[in-house]
Amino acid sequence: MPEKKKKLYEGKAKIVYETDDPDKLILHFKDSATAFDGVKKAQLEGKGSLNNTISSIIFEVLHKKGIKTHYIKKLSDNEMLVWRAERFLVEVVVRNLAAGSIVKRLGFKEGEKFEKPLVEFFYKNDQLHDPLVCEAHIDLMKLAPIEALPTMRETALKVNSILSEFFSQNGIILVDFKLEFGRLPDGSIGIVDEISPDSMRLWDAETGEKLDKDRFRFDLGDLLEGYRKVLERISQ
Amino acid sequence: MPEKKKKLYEGKAKIVYETDDPDKLILHFKDSATAFDGVKKAQLEGKGSLNNTISSIIFEVLHKKGIKTHYIKKLSDNEMLVWRAERFLVEVVVRNLAAGSIVKRLGFKEGEKFEKPLVEFFYKNDQLHDPLVCEAHIDLMKLAPIEALPTMRETALKVNSILSEFFSQNGIILVDFKLEFGRLPDGSIGIVDEISPDSMRLWDAETGEKLDKDRFRFDLGDLLEGYRKVLERISQ
Repeated sequence: MPEKKKKLYEGKAKIVYETDDPDKLILHFKDSATAFDGVKKAQLEGKGSLNNTISSIIFEVLHKKGIKTHYIKKLSDNEMLVWRAERFLVEVVVRNLAAGSIVKRLGFKEGEKFEKPLVEFFYKNDQLHDPLVCEAHIDLMKLAPIEALPTMRETALKVNSILSEFFSQNGIILVDFKLEFGRLPDGSIGIVDEISPDSMRLWDAETGEKLDKDRFRFDLGDLLEGYRKVLERISQ
Repeated sequence: MPEKKKKLYEGKAKIVYETDDPDKLILHFKDSATAFDGVKKAQLEGKGSLNNTISSIIFEVLHKKGIKTHYIKKLSDNEMLVWRAERFLVEVVVRNLAAGSIVKRLGFKEGEKFEKPLVEFFYKNDQLHDPLVCEAHIDLMKLAPIEALPTMRETALKVNSILSEFFSQNGIILVDFKLEFGRLPDGSIGIVDEISPDSMRLWDAETGEKLDKDRFRFDLGDLLEGYRKVLERISQ
């Protein structure tokens, strides 16, 4: 069992610790929910464990399909062992149906299905509210190595295919999701951070019920009940 | 002299008329100034003539350098004869220095020089306040033919080189500008609309004085005095 050493960084939903291996880190998933760049907050016992477990299952699904990620293994209820990565300052969002910011931004109707999945990049910057960026901005502002963008875009679309099918088999529609990328110790580009109902929109395929963080954002019902339903379905 | 026939369209700054030739239109430049999607308005006698004259000079400069535009000729103080075009729903912005929306949006300092010119695309939609779009959005929403984008980007950068030098010779810094594109009657892609101090940021190279529509937007001084200075300098 790797040992937690120095705390490297504490974010809104996770704490990152160094270990005795300089290439490996421990992610501790906190029991906190935040939305709107941290303006809305709550403490929810069990959330960290749910996100860690769901993320671990998803990383294992992706691993089996040959997708490179920072995931090594789940260590405990709230802890995940991962490869250390130089993280890029870009969030990659893939959208299958219109929901969230794009509805107001570009005039789509909530739930409208896109002709093909839409890949968007955002500058990871809370103060600026994670603004949309295109390749030219990423290049100019050096938010990520420009030669990594095709890999990031292709990987995001592959992940979309894999996870859309995975969730669909479990009666859930993958509406959209956010990925982060970085350079792993072996020099390759891989997915970092978490992939959980905090970073995906998941709707029940039958009822349309929202099972993700929108429950918390818009007070649509108990957050953890949604997350528990997701875990239950994908654990079968 | 081509004759004005049916009024086709009236915008914030121009009226478009058909002529007896179905491939040719007359643009009438109005004496009105608007900003912030039409929220701020004023009637300014002489503005239409200034913009028509400045635009005509610029289109002629571009024409000599082999840039395809809808411009045919200046007909009178307020009128320009142009080719009819199927206009794309995209505005192309080229930025040399940070100013305007990009300062708040991405955290640049006003006046900061970019390492290389930045080309951005915006969805031409007042109701949505002309949001930033990337290639993927333009493709998905069919805002312009996707195969036209490389031409639009290259043309915008060529125009930037030509006009940066042209203004620089006349003691003016070309900070940024907006172009619109469309398909001309011969099937080629060309620049449409106007290229005037309404659609460019122009700063005096010595004093930094703003000579463009920002004078009106932010009450920095008499708008037409700025436009007259621009015309005076580029007429020499």
